[in-house]
Amino acid sequence: MNPRSIAIVGASPNPVKQGYRYLQQLLEFGFKGKLYPVNRRGGTILGLEVHPSLSAIPGPVDYVISTIPAEEVPQLVKDCAQKGVKLLQLYTAQLAETGIPEQKKLEEQIVELAQRLGVRILGPNCMGVYRPEIGLTFRFSPPREVGDIACISQSAGHAGEMIYRGGLRGLRFSQVISYGNAADINEAEFLEYFASDDKTRIIAAYIEGVRSPHFASVLKAAARLKPVIICKAGRTAAGARGAASHTGSLAGNYAVWKALVKQCGAIHVDSIDELIDTTVAFAKLPVPKGRNVGIIGSGGGGSIIAADEFELNGLHVPPMPQAVLDEVKTFLGNDWRLVKNPLDNSVILPMGWGMDVLKRIFAIMAAHPIFQILVGDAGEWYPETPADAVYSEATTSMLLEIRKSTDKPMALVLRPADHTEEWKWRCFLEQQQRCINEGAAVFPSITRAAKALGNYAGYCLTPSKKQISR
Amino acid sequence: MNPRSIAIVGASPNPVKQGYRYLQQLLEFGFKGKLYPVNRRGGTILGLEVHPSLSAIPGPVDYVISTIPAEEVPQLVKDCAQKGVKLLQLYTAQLAETGIPEQKKLEEQIVELAQRLGVRILGPNCMGVYRPEIGLTFRFSPPREVGDIACISQSAGHAGEMIYRGGLRGLRFSQVISYGNAADINEAEFLEYFASDDKTRIIAAYIEGVRSPHFASVLKAAARLKPVIICKAGRTAAGARGAASHTGSLAGNYAVWKALVKQCGAIHVDSIDELIDTTVAFAKLPVPKGRNVGIIGSGGGGSIIAADEFELNGLHVPPMPQAVLDEVKTFLGNDWRLVKNPLDNSVILPMGWGMDVLKRIFAIMAAHPIFQILVGDAGEWYPETPADAVYSEATTSMLLEIRKSTDKPMALVLRPADHTEEWKWRCFLEQQQRCINEGAAVFPSITRAAKALGNYAGYCLTPSKKQISR
Repeated sequence: MNPRSIAIVGASPNPVKQGYRYLQQLLEFGFKGKLYPVNRRGGTILGLEVHPSLSAIPGPVDYVISTIPAEEVPQLVKDCAQKGVKLLQLYTAQLAETGIPEQKKLEEQIVELAQRLGVRILGPNCMGVYRPEIGLTFRFSPPREVGDIACISQSAGHAGEMIYRGGLRGLRFSQVISYGNAADINEAEFLEYFASDDKTRIIAAYIEGVRSPHFASVLKAAARLKPVIICKAGRTAAGARGAASHTGSLAGNYAVWKALVKQCGAIHVDSIDELIDTTVAFAKLPVPKGRNVGIIGSGGGGSIIAADEFELNGLHVPPMPQAVLDEVKTFLGNDWRLVKNPLDNSVILPMGWGMDVLKRIFAIMAAHPIFQILVGDAGEWYPETPADAVYSEATTSMLLEIRKSTDKPMALVLRPADHTEEWKWRCFLEQQQRCINEGAAVFPSITRAAKALGNYAGYCLTPSKKQISR
Repeated sequence: MNPRSIAIVGASPNPVKQGYRYLQQLLEFGFKGKLYPVNRRGGTILGLEVHPSLSAIPGPVDYVISTIPAEEVPQLVKDCAQKGVKLLQLYTAQLAETGIPEQKKLEEQIVELAQRLGVRILGPNCMGVYRPEIGLTFRFSPPREVGDIACISQSAGHAGEMIYRGGLRGLRFSQVISYGNAADINEAEFLEYFASDDKTRIIAAYIEGVRSPHFASVLKAAARLKPVIICKAGRTAAGARGAASHTGSLAGNYAVWKALVKQCGAIHVDSIDELIDTTVAFAKLPVPKGRNVGIIGSGGGGSIIAADEFELNGLHVPPMPQAVLDEVKTFLGNDWRLVKNPLDNSVILPMGWGMDVLKRIFAIMAAHPIFQILVGDAGEWYPETPADAVYSEATTSMLLEIRKSTDKPMALVLRPADHTEEWKWRCFLEQQQRCINEGAAVFPSITRAAKALGNYAGYCLTPSKKQISR
């Protein structure tokens, strides 16, 4: 996965074809190696000379991306072997995933031939590798920063969601690999690789069907070294049918799967949103010392829903301890009786106490040992008029200051910046960016925050899970 | 709830006070009646003469909004009675919800006095009424258009979410009422009122605790006339504690609650997001004739997750029927074998078939009687470069054309427009707006669409639920 040179076999001068887009993406992202378009017709594409064949390329080629039809791949495998290519990535699809007997057979033949000739196959039916360190990508404009999260996904779409939607949340990757049908290199080999990769601290995975007979033992070994978070599709008969036709995968029984993942010490999630959210928790939060959550809730209704959601996800929302109330009494007088956990921001602000008082109370909560996890929901504080933007800013500042002052894990909840008015979109976006830039764990809703923190705390607080400390 | 004149008692010249904001909101929204600020200090606010007392107002007053402290409310009730005011809305809080014995007693005294003097109380601890027909509002810049959805909410924050977040999804309201502690007018009276209100077709509710001993029979009667969708907070002990301190509500046992709502023929939901989504389904979709869903899925992985999610929510994702495949064969040749339900858009497009072929296949699916519900997920088709925006537009057009050509319910899934780049935000927003403007039911994720459609179809297909036809 660390090529010094890439050939794109099936390179095309047509900008809507993937054989053009790969080249354009790699050029724009700044691949730090040599790029060779290959097409019988020759010419130039994006200023690069097109070579008529692999063998016509003057220098060595480490990695080949194929966008040619499936029927031509066996010859390409032979060409790769002759050229000394180590890895052949097949964007090429319509093989085993079609369920068509002759295509299944063709895929088998390709893999058999490749194994005999010493060429490894990534895919088929996959988009390939995003590795910002060397400027490798299969999508336009992904984050340029290198991170320590590795992601493997049988779906290129979900790999893209991790990169883009995860990227918006501040996730940064060592590598993201879309691996499709997994005909040769499969989930087990990736897990082994990333488990021993010094540049990877967390492994996230989207799996449709397990290929390796050694999966359980490999997962167990990997999970002993670092957190492995897995989303599995094919939870129902209809979904399993879909997995078979997407990547030719056998989904298997879902209840058995969940038990297996848990037994191996890995983390099971149900959706891509939950995979992103849970990875955010692992990537951004220190280890909690317990399950008790102290919350600034968004309004009265929001506070109740917050209490419900955290309790339903295995965490605990204790009543406000007397010691906090006693301290609050010293500056609130009789109004200490309005102070609860969750701390309803709407009870505090309309009384004219303002942000300083809210911050003071939350700081006392943050310092009290009963609370081991903190949550600040800014959700409901959205501005109704452009002039209200100052409240959004003040809220963000308050939450970020508390976050900086504590070594407890603290999650922030900020609603998505999906507004129709430009001023409102900008206002939300600015607050999100401030939080992301400071490295905060930001979630789009209380429900999603509660699920992710439940997964994270459940993992950290299970005995023998000590590898997440930092 | 249909006042010709409103007095705001506690009107303030300070723009951050609610006694100013109410006035500003009503002026900006264009309340179609007389507005009277009341404050002992007199003067003018926002160009309106401030009256020193209710009795000093020259004309009749139908409705009073109170932002004064709780202790002054008993006198205000007397003033209201003297002035012939029918309804007193108490933004005033810090009464029973505080749990403080003397404040609970004060609330009881206020209600008792009001009942004796013939004044009805809305609240306390509530924001009041949004009724676009007459320009009544308690938030800035809500939609001006009148709709046929009524919403009642014990939380003003959640009422605001219905108006704003629901508004972005095309929900339009007859009325939205934030009713807080429900000390006098409670959920049962609202249900009775909206059940017989010709301008209301659907009732949505957020309830923390039931006040009326007749709730079950009133709900049953209302649910016989129109759909009633209810979100209830206080699912856990911590949540129930929150409900008690927010609106002084007794949350009760959640399992009992769910059974009761179902037995009464109403629809139970677990969160405000689900309340909005389910209301969108009821408001925007025709009645399905069955539970079989035909889907254009977003990529291979997205298609599998779609199949899983719909199956897990009580719907059915059948394999593609032979008759559809036979028709597809006539123009796809052997590639008909790649056509499945869900129809994976990424299998279709990279083959160079383009949008027309995808549309042609989906039109055949839409016409086949096996599919009774249609879903088009445009989610993954997001543009990676500004030039790709044409694909987003073409996708939207294709989905909207299919939608127009069928009388089956069809849901669209479009990801939120929450991007950091302005061109991408605009591109997403434009597609969302096109769909909303055509009256489509749009959902931000497959998971949320599946849950809402499961609720809706489950309701429609239960015998004796015929009142939703249109």
